[in-house]
Amino acid sequence: MIIGGSASQALAGEVAEKLDEKLCHVETKKFPDGERYYRIKDEIAPDERVIVVQSTGYPQDENMMELFFILDTLSDMNVEDIIVVSPYLGYSRQERRFKDVECISAKATARLIQAMGAKRVISINLHEQSICDLYDIPVDNLSAMPAIAEYIAQTTEDKPVVLAPDKGAINFAKEIAEVLDTDYDYLEKVRLSPEVVETKTKNISIDNRRVVIIDDIISTGGTIVNAIEILKEQGATAVDVYCVHPVLVNDAILKINAAGADNLQATNTLKSEVSGISVAQTIAQHIKSL
Amino acid sequence: MIIGGSASQALAGEVAEKLDEKLCHVETKKFPDGERYYRIKDEIAPDERVIVVQSTGYPQDENMMELFFILDTLSDMNVEDIIVVSPYLGYSRQERRFKDVECISAKATARLIQAMGAKRVISINLHEQSICDLYDIPVDNLSAMPAIAEYIAQTTEDKPVVLAPDKGAINFAKEIAEVLDTDYDYLEKVRLSPEVVETKTKNISIDNRRVVIIDDIISTGGTIVNAIEILKEQGATAVDVYCVHPVLVNDAILKINAAGADNLQATNTLKSEVSGISVAQTIAQHIKSL
Repeated sequence: MIIGGSASQALAGEVAEKLDEKLCHVETKKFPDGERYYRIKDEIAPDERVIVVQSTGYPQDENMMELFFILDTLSDMNVEDIIVVSPYLGYSRQERRFKDVECISAKATARLIQAMGAKRVISINLHEQSICDLYDIPVDNLSAMPAIAEYIAQTTEDKPVVLAPDKGAINFAKEIAEVLDTDYDYLEKVRLSPEVVETKTKNISIDNRRVVIIDDIISTGGTIVNAIEILKEQGATAVDVYCVHPVLVNDAILKINAAGADNLQATNTLKSEVSGISVAQTIAQHIKSL
Repeated sequence: MIIGGSASQALAGEVAEKLDEKLCHVETKKFPDGERYYRIKDEIAPDERVIVVQSTGYPQDENMMELFFILDTLSDMNVEDIIVVSPYLGYSRQERRFKDVECISAKATARLIQAMGAKRVISINLHEQSICDLYDIPVDNLSAMPAIAEYIAQTTEDKPVVLAPDKGAINFAKEIAEVLDTDYDYLEKVRLSPEVVETKTKNISIDNRRVVIIDDIISTGGTIVNAIEILKEQGATAVDVYCVHPVLVNDAILKINAAGADNLQATNTLKSEVSGISVAQTIAQHIKSL
């Protein structure tokens, strides 16, 4: 049985179809005072495996609380084998302490998810692999790069250079380039003098080539805007932007397009105007392998 | 040590002052993507008793999550003696199941609050006394009626009739009337014929008298608006409205005032434009007695 949370309704349906599992009928609403109502309308046998699909991006607190309510209702139904699929796991960005005494919100949410009865968590391109260690239950950190690579292969005619906007994302670029059988690189800041910093590709000339920028997450879009402008200046014929998690706060899409992006696409780990690449197959395939 | 959550900042300060306890320095913010940041800036000894004051009304999910983050941070500081004061306890209105299989949200939140390490919960005029049974830790359900009665005594010259808008609120009216040394009653619907229902005071004539309406919570204000109109028709010289929890969704205050309320006051269990009666003394006095 698959249960979709309100943040991942379409994705839950796709996962159910790919696994040939039933998608649960639920009833949700909000009362005039803002409190949520949650009801599971189907019967679920206590020994059934239930997969709850709920992304926990913005509004994080609402999506988290809905997840906890789903888990609590399942525990009332004596369901024990519960897998939480949270393709974008909210509050993952603070997974360690930088100052005394900060809340390690990734750990706090881990405690909450576990306390409500999850037996396994599946997520996509977690902010840090170390987040898995904050849980006492198994956490599977899947990569959406194969899905993104497949999408690029199907929609791009020329062979692009795959480019990471910084060194930290180089492994994503490598993963994509290997599938596309092309070259990859990253953007590097070089200090030419005390006053002048130049940003350019580390090894490969992108002059007269199509460039595909790949990152795990785009938030404000600042890094990407910067990269697009530099690449266009340096002769790129086209710049396509791909990411896993389209957080895209405020006017990030506008900014990226205004900077000259020729394409902007992301996966459906989060709702957005550009969530055109589905991670349903990535999730379904992994669940089949369990 | 007292820690105030963002929903009860002023109340936490008042409670700290009345208990002569320190109010903790904290740092809170939201990142551009909507995720909250929480940091406790003061040192707290592991054996210190910490009282966390956080109302969990609208936005319920945000206030709840902030409470969980505070509790998680305290657990990282090895603090164990933690009292949660949630003067308005969100999600209390679904404390039982009416249909299969509804989430009993009052129970779900009880599990979450306990899982994060609270050792006692203090609240004010809970929706139902039975909510206490959903917890394994002590839950103290205090009454704000003495505070409201004191406020009425100080601000009202004529001796009013205290009126419950329905039979369910009669004990609140009784509690207030006893302090004010006056009479009390409730509004009752009487079916005069199959088509005609009249609503009137059960026992006492309110003709030519000031009436004080008292209830535990006002949400949409529908019941109160109805009561005011009836009382004015039946000759009340003035109608004052008091409640504990000013949920007051949408235009409830406007509606109540437009119906002819002469005063509208509530306690500060929730932020509102009419939260003029403080429950700080009610809370402080109870904590002293523990």
